[in-house]
Amino acid sequence: MRIVFVGDSLTVGVGDETYLGWPGRLCAASSAAGLPLTLYNLGVRSETSRHIKNRLGRELPPRLLPRDEARVVLSFGVNDAKIENGRRKVELAESVDNLFEIVSKTSSLCPTLMVGPPPVLDDAYRARIEELSDVFAGSCAEMGLPYLDMCRPLCRQSAYLDSLAAVGDGYHPGAAGYAAFAARVGEWEAWQGWFV
Amino acid sequence: MRIVFVGDSLTVGVGDETYLGWPGRLCAASSAAGLPLTLYNLGVRSETSRHIKNRLGRELPPRLLPRDEARVVLSFGVNDAKIENGRRKVELAESVDNLFEIVSKTSSLCPTLMVGPPPVLDDAYRARIEELSDVFAGSCAEMGLPYLDMCRPLCRQSAYLDSLAAVGDGYHPGAAGYAAFAARVGEWEAWQGWFV
Repeated sequence: MRIVFVGDSLTVGVGDETYLGWPGRLCAASSAAGLPLTLYNLGVRSETSRHIKNRLGRELPPRLLPRDEARVVLSFGVNDAKIENGRRKVELAESVDNLFEIVSKTSSLCPTLMVGPPPVLDDAYRARIEELSDVFAGSCAEMGLPYLDMCRPLCRQSAYLDSLAAVGDGYHPGAAGYAAFAARVGEWEAWQGWFV
Repeated sequence: MRIVFVGDSLTVGVGDETYLGWPGRLCAASSAAGLPLTLYNLGVRSETSRHIKNRLGRELPPRLLPRDEARVVLSFGVNDAKIENGRRKVELAESVDNLFEIVSKTSSLCPTLMVGPPPVLDDAYRARIEELSDVFAGSCAEMGLPYLDMCRPLCRQSAYLDSLAAVGDGYHPGAAGYAAFAARVGEWEAWQGWFV
């Protein structure tokens, strides 16, 4: 089975000195459990839902050939909720529109899951991510797409927060943080449901 | 610095139970030496130089933003030299044309290196890869592009050959093979020259 992870720097694993990120950890765990997966990591630094929407249609087809079983995991939003030059990079309403468009593309190709944006250290920024995560959860419910909130749960995990503080930019964790991230996704029944 | 690795299943690390592949090992070693890199892995299973040529122009720009220092490492050829339904997937002359076109795209964007295709277990298939590697070496020399032959050197390493035999399909190694692959690239002066 091929799994394409689509997202931003947190998907590609920026800050992780092991270079596995959470997608690599999930696939290694699956392989250790006897189910090797082909991992395609399409995370790109600094991207918002707008960027992802624009490139997804071009990048998925070479990786999702009709002859192979395939899955997509989406994860973005931290950059949408970022304030740059006094403005939010992507307004809430546009983030939702982009999510709908992205999901309409992926779910016509293969089963899709969405993993929500994780917390950052800054309180105001984190509040915007929580709000976005709630809105994404509602939109995904509307579409019948499984959605995993990451922001509040990881915010209660010192492993994640300490890792954020250690890396230093306030929103990328290191290896310990990505391990906590991967553990939460790995325990998710929607993820596990793909392999039964 | 962002490094984009462009290639096939051997670039994406198929068979590697650690999910690092050789690009992940190279970047982890660089990070351990004090220089963290952003790793983009654009390896896609079963692709030949023809596939790579067709998607490269679309996939590089989102990952190579003008504001960031960037590099590209190319590695393909094993699938070009494969016989399928009695025919070579890509004829030698076309492989060379594709290489020239790929390099003209990447080297206009950023410094580029090429890592040659590694050996496979089958003797006749490996001979075709060796021949292709020699032709790629000549073409790269013509373009002034550093090229690293992998086929003959890895063929003399039992770590690589044993790993190929252990995985079982005859052309993907496991973790030990990818470690040997990464070690050879890591010792290459052209790779090291990017970080001095």
